Amino acid sequence: MAGDSPTPVTVVGLGSMGRALAGAFLAAGHPTTVWNRTPGRAGPLVEKGAVPAESVADAVAASGLVVTCLTTFEDTRAALEPAAGALRGRALVTLNSGSPSGARETAAWATAHGARLLAGAVKNVPAAVGAPDTLLYYSGDRSVFDAHETTLRALGGDTVHLGEEPDLAALYEMAVGAMLLPALVGFFQGAAAVQARGLRAESMVRFAGKWLDMIKTLLPVYAAEIDSGDYTDAASSVDLFLTGAAHDDDLAEETNVDTAWLAPLHDLLRRAAEAGHGGHSIAALTEVLRKGA
Amino acid sequence: MAGDSPTPVTVVGLGSMGRALAGAFLAAGHPTTVWNRTPGRAGPLVEKGAVPAESVADAVAASGLVVTCLTTFEDTRAALEPAAGALRGRALVTLNSGSPSGARETAAWATAHGARLLAGAVKNVPAAVGAPDTLLYYSGDRSVFDAHETTLRALGGDTVHLGEEPDLAALYEMAVGAMLLPALVGFFQGAAAVQARGLRAESMVRFAGKWLDMIKTLLPVYAAEIDSGDYTDAASSVDLFLTGAAHDDDLAEETNVDTAWLAPLHDLLRRAAEAGHGGHSIAALTEVLRKGA
Ligand SMILES: NC(=O)c1ccc[n+]([C@@H]2O[C@H](COP(=O)([O-])OP(=O)(O)OC[C@H]3O[C@@H](n4cnc5c(N)ncnc54)[C@H](OP(=O)(O)O)[C@@H]3O)[C@@H](O)[C@H]2O)c1
Ligand SMILES: NC(=O)c1ccc[n+]([C@@H]2O[C@H](COP(=O)([O-])OP(=O)(O)OC[C@H]3O[C@@H](n4cnc5c(N)ncnc54)[C@H](OP(=O)(O)O)[C@@H]3O)[C@@H](O)[C@H]2O)c1
Repeated sequence: MAGDSPTPVTVVGLGSMGRALAGAFLAAGHPTTVWNRTPGRAGPLVEKGAVPAESVADAVAASGLVVTCLTTFEDTRAALEPAAGALRGRALVTLNSGSPSGARETAAWATAHGARLLAGAVKNVPAAVGAPDTLLYYSGDRSVFDAHETTLRALGGDTVHLGEEPDLAALYEMAVGAMLLPALVGFFQGAAAVQARGLRAESMVRFAGKWLDMIKTLLPVYAAEIDSGDYTDAASSVDLFLTGAAHDDDLAEETNVDTAWLAPLHDLLRRAAEAGHGGHSIAALTEVLRKGA
Repeated sequence: MAGDSPTPVTVVGLGSMGRALAGAFLAAGHPTTVWNRTPGRAGPLVEKGAVPAESVADAVAASGLVVTCLTTFEDTRAALEPAAGALRGRALVTLNSGSPSGARETAAWATAHGARLLAGAVKNVPAAVGAPDTLLYYSGDRSVFDAHETTLRALGGDTVHLGEEPDLAALYEMAVGAMLLPALVGFFQGAAAVQARGLRAESMVRFAGKWLDMIKTLLPVYAAEIDSGDYTDAASSVDLFLTGAAHDDDLAEETNVDTAWLAPLHDLLRRAAEAGHGGHSIAALTEVLRKGA
């Protein structure tokens, strides 16, 4: 049996992330066919052995396993439409951001064309693709995951199947991803504040990194509170955060930084306190975030 | 010389954090005097050898090194006011949250009473006090830091003096701390979203933890962009975040979670794009956060 020779794979979409994915498949020895809407992005991959397809239909026809990395689910379906006839019997793996509904629509679309869909997400930056600790999670057709787990592991050693429902990865992608922009804007605001004092943003990196380590240790505690609905054993209370919120305006004034984006967060704190959560754990904000709460 | 016997220390304020600080001094063998406005909070510390003072003036008079851990700088000055006459010649170390202006006012107040002030911050939770990796930073009178560094190290092994200006620790405390509430609300929103699907918040903890690790790796990159003002080499662009922002509304609808707090963040993205930063690194948001930008 030739079962040990690396599975051929096609990568559709050669943006920052798609190029990293194709590069990782090549590095792991997989015969790799690539295609991108705008020509000319395959060059460095071709030098490493990738085969550029003439059309998206050729790209899909080249491998039993087709991995897409386009901007959205809508883009993915639009790009694959001319290749729909070639999808039958293939394993389609999408690796893009998007909403759960987009994942469900894409699963229905793939099924209608006779393909089996695994909808996944890369929980890291392109530079981390291929590293043993890099996390990718997938949801949807379990048989695709089982058949191709080893191949997919070339993209990152921490490779997980979340369940058969095709939208689970999108759900977790958005749930987990919700920390990113707010945390970064907090960091940027801090950077602007230290710069206003003539200091370099670089000087806060070590401290901010340790602060993220600290936040990480809080997550299991807060998750347990949220799952139990018991917020009474508060290590850091809503009221403590309200006290801190009062200082944000001072800082805005001193450092000439626009902190207006914090207003709705302060409002959440006040609404939580009004709902009787003042002495409760800050995780009680979860109750206020539920619509109709 | 008795230079090797542990320095006597007084802890004023026995809230969650103050109790942890006093406990760490006791564990390190320091003769520890404690005082709290509301009586009855010293009990477990007294069992471990702490000496409860009758009044704040007695507490201050008991040690050359006085550590306070009250809610704000204003509370700190108010609590110490009856002991102001006893402050002369002592080293006063404040460990509370507050604005840079609060730190400066407290330094002026301490100087007027003949005390030397070190204004610091504990960058962690009470449970982490005393651990080798726990970060505390201080600013203000360098001679206090030099004289008491070993003693202060009992509170956390990563103990840093930021500079002579008394408000530097408060500045960094707020700059670094600005990530906390937004990141947590992001996590709570994600938790509410997975719960709306019948899944447990606990199921996202491992993924969210790795996500924070990922965010940590981005900070030096973004700080370098902010310090140089060059945002053109974008690993993740403002436009990419704008695309993601569009999905937040879908998720809000599907999972019945109130995402209104994200509106000003999306607005920042749009303003950055309008200012010509669409293809630039997300760190370019820093420019939009500067007032008058
Ligand atoms: N970059 C990251 O840090 C990162 C991290 C995690 C996840 N992701 C996710 O990965 C996905 C791709 O991101 P990226 O950074 O690679 O984006 P990118 O660099 O902007 O590339 C986007 C890719 O999608 C293609 N595309 C978009 N719309 C298309 C359409 N209608 N038809 C055909 N091709 C289309 C583009 O083709 P053209 O070249 O023809 O425009 C390009 O290949 C996104 O969902 C993103 O959220 C990215
Ligand atoms: N807890 C944390 O996770 C954490 C982490 C890092 C930093 N911090 C900072 O540490 C400081 C203390 O926090 P904490 O968690 O210990 O708060 P806490 O549990 O609420 O305790 C507050 C303490 O301040 C005292 N106090 C407040 N106002 C006072 C006044 N006007 N006069 C006399 N005493 C007064 C309280 O005395 P009574 O008992 O008489 O009310 C109590 O001892 C805050 O600045 C906080 O931001 C806390």
